[in-house]
Amino acid sequence: MIRPVFWEEDHVVLLDQTRLPWEERWLCLRRWEEVAEAIRTMKVRGAPAIGIAAAYGLVLAALRPKPGRTPAEEFQEAREGLGKTRPTAVNLFWALERMSRTLQGCDIEEELPERLLSEAKRIHEEDIAANLRMGELGAELLPEGVRVLTICNTGALATGGHGTALGVVRTAWAKGKLRMVYVCETRPVLQGARLTAWELLREGIPFKILADFASGLLFRRREVDVVLSGADRIARNGDFANKVGTYVLALLAQRHRVPFYVVAPSSTFDLGLSSEEGIPIEERPEEEVLRPYGFPLAPEGARAWNPAFDLTPGELVTAFVTEKGVIRPPYAHTIPETFSR
Amino acid sequence: MIRPVFWEEDHVVLLDQTRLPWEERWLCLRRWEEVAEAIRTMKVRGAPAIGIAAAYGLVLAALRPKPGRTPAEEFQEAREGLGKTRPTAVNLFWALERMSRTLQGCDIEEELPERLLSEAKRIHEEDIAANLRMGELGAELLPEGVRVLTICNTGALATGGHGTALGVVRTAWAKGKLRMVYVCETRPVLQGARLTAWELLREGIPFKILADFASGLLFRRREVDVVLSGADRIARNGDFANKVGTYVLALLAQRHRVPFYVVAPSSTFDLGLSSEEGIPIEERPEEEVLRPYGFPLAPEGARAWNPAFDLTPGELVTAFVTEKGVIRPPYAHTIPETFSR
Repeated sequence: MIRPVFWEEDHVVLLDQTRLPWEERWLCLRRWEEVAEAIRTMKVRGAPAIGIAAAYGLVLAALRPKPGRTPAEEFQEAREGLGKTRPTAVNLFWALERMSRTLQGCDIEEELPERLLSEAKRIHEEDIAANLRMGELGAELLPEGVRVLTICNTGALATGGHGTALGVVRTAWAKGKLRMVYVCETRPVLQGARLTAWELLREGIPFKILADFASGLLFRRREVDVVLSGADRIARNGDFANKVGTYVLALLAQRHRVPFYVVAPSSTFDLGLSSEEGIPIEERPEEEVLRPYGFPLAPEGARAWNPAFDLTPGELVTAFVTEKGVIRPPYAHTIPETFSR
Repeated sequence: MIRPVFWEEDHVVLLDQTRLPWEERWLCLRRWEEVAEAIRTMKVRGAPAIGIAAAYGLVLAALRPKPGRTPAEEFQEAREGLGKTRPTAVNLFWALERMSRTLQGCDIEEELPERLLSEAKRIHEEDIAANLRMGELGAELLPEGVRVLTICNTGALATGGHGTALGVVRTAWAKGKLRMVYVCETRPVLQGARLTAWELLREGIPFKILADFASGLLFRRREVDVVLSGADRIARNGDFANKVGTYVLALLAQRHRVPFYVVAPSSTFDLGLSSEEGIPIEERPEEEVLRPYGFPLAPEGARAWNPAFDLTPGELVTAFVTEKGVIRPPYAHTIPETFSR
């Protein structure tokens, strides 16, 4: 199983996803600031993977405080710095919060790094276990010979390993249920064409990449049986943020009566939010649209608008697949119920 | 006014649109096969511009028949060859048919090239006149301070000059009614980011490029007042083919109660078709998705699906803006009525 980020001896190892599929470059990070930079520049991306990377980043902070600072002080500094990297995915804040609770229970400063490392590894292992469980639950929902449409990368690269929506694809493939995966290329950063294709190719899973807007014709031709999406933050009523374009797929799915499933672990649910209203949408540099990976698409002087995420109303979601079970409407009732158990 | 294709002395001059915005390269074409190749490879594109280029291509055929052939024989050969270049836009077939009628009325073989040239120039001039008229009619439909969303390139580059949907933008800008143009980058060939941006920049019209899938969030934020689209073929009931993704925009417009106007001249209407059923959808090389302009986006070995157009039901169209007037539903009644006058 590919793990896009993991701990080794005294440092974080991370696959630079901005270099895929062209090059498999693994980075060794020894300072939390490097982790923060890797998150900001999307060397590591995907809501769960960001949370895991941030957790390991906090370990680095406690392990190597700057001169004149205690491990706990450096931890607080790192927590703040990491919290400013990307605003939309809630898994980041969830992981920072969970790591902070470890701090509170630790009276002996020397034990702090070790305790934090245990907790970070636990977050990582729990994420993989949740993915495997969601893979099983999600695959059960799919018909034999299913043709799946998906957006962005929600695979091993986006998580601790295995994947959320793409984890369901993986499990369905292992069970022999999968016929075809249609992969939205996912402009502007091309996580579909670059990363999902890279993962599927390695495993021999049949897939085709399409320009994002070609998805409309795919639905009209009835060539898609189910949409599988990840999520970056889910409100109590089922409204959720995900990669920009997810809303379009949800709307198409509704119009063409195709099930639309969101696959996401508990850590992606923000139960403090009653609806999408409070979800911040990150706007990223115009260059990602105008000059992706240095290749100029537009004339010099052109401007762009580059929201990284969009918002989809819960009413368009057929079900949420979580490691706690499959959640169906009415979400304002069923989501809080699932997580209060 | 930019004219992407025109006749000069004894040859066709054509702006190579595959090189924009990087380079302004004008080509001189002296053989009809070169025109066919320019259409096939999208050096010239846009339904009306393809029709005009093909008409000039037929003039070249009659002007320079191959050894042992009469001008009329070469014309027939060219007609067949040009007809095979791109299947979706009906303007191509409309222009070939109209030029053929000239042939029928010409008894003196020596007069043929000159007669054909007159007819091709007439097609060209009529297209520009139609665009200017549609610009006026379309601009009248727009509110003051309008924010327009558009797809592909429907400007001077796609037509004889001025443009269809972008012609309306141009006229609205001249009248001081326009606040902002949101330009879908239009993957895979990027006619929005490359060509529409190039045109708007030259005229100082304010615009922003967005990843195609970001259009959903634009609607949800109520930042678009009207969608203006071109068309490649319109059936008698208002169903139409246009650049892949147009259907998605029409669906978003309906959901968010935003007017969706299709701007197209008479030559784009295929009155022989009762609905979208008979419209062929061109599928283009996978490379356009996987390696646009030679830049590899996906891993080696990945496959793609690349339909160049999609189909939008007439029920999603608020009105068609033509040079004969603005056509409103019920289209099965109003479209035939407009063109039988």
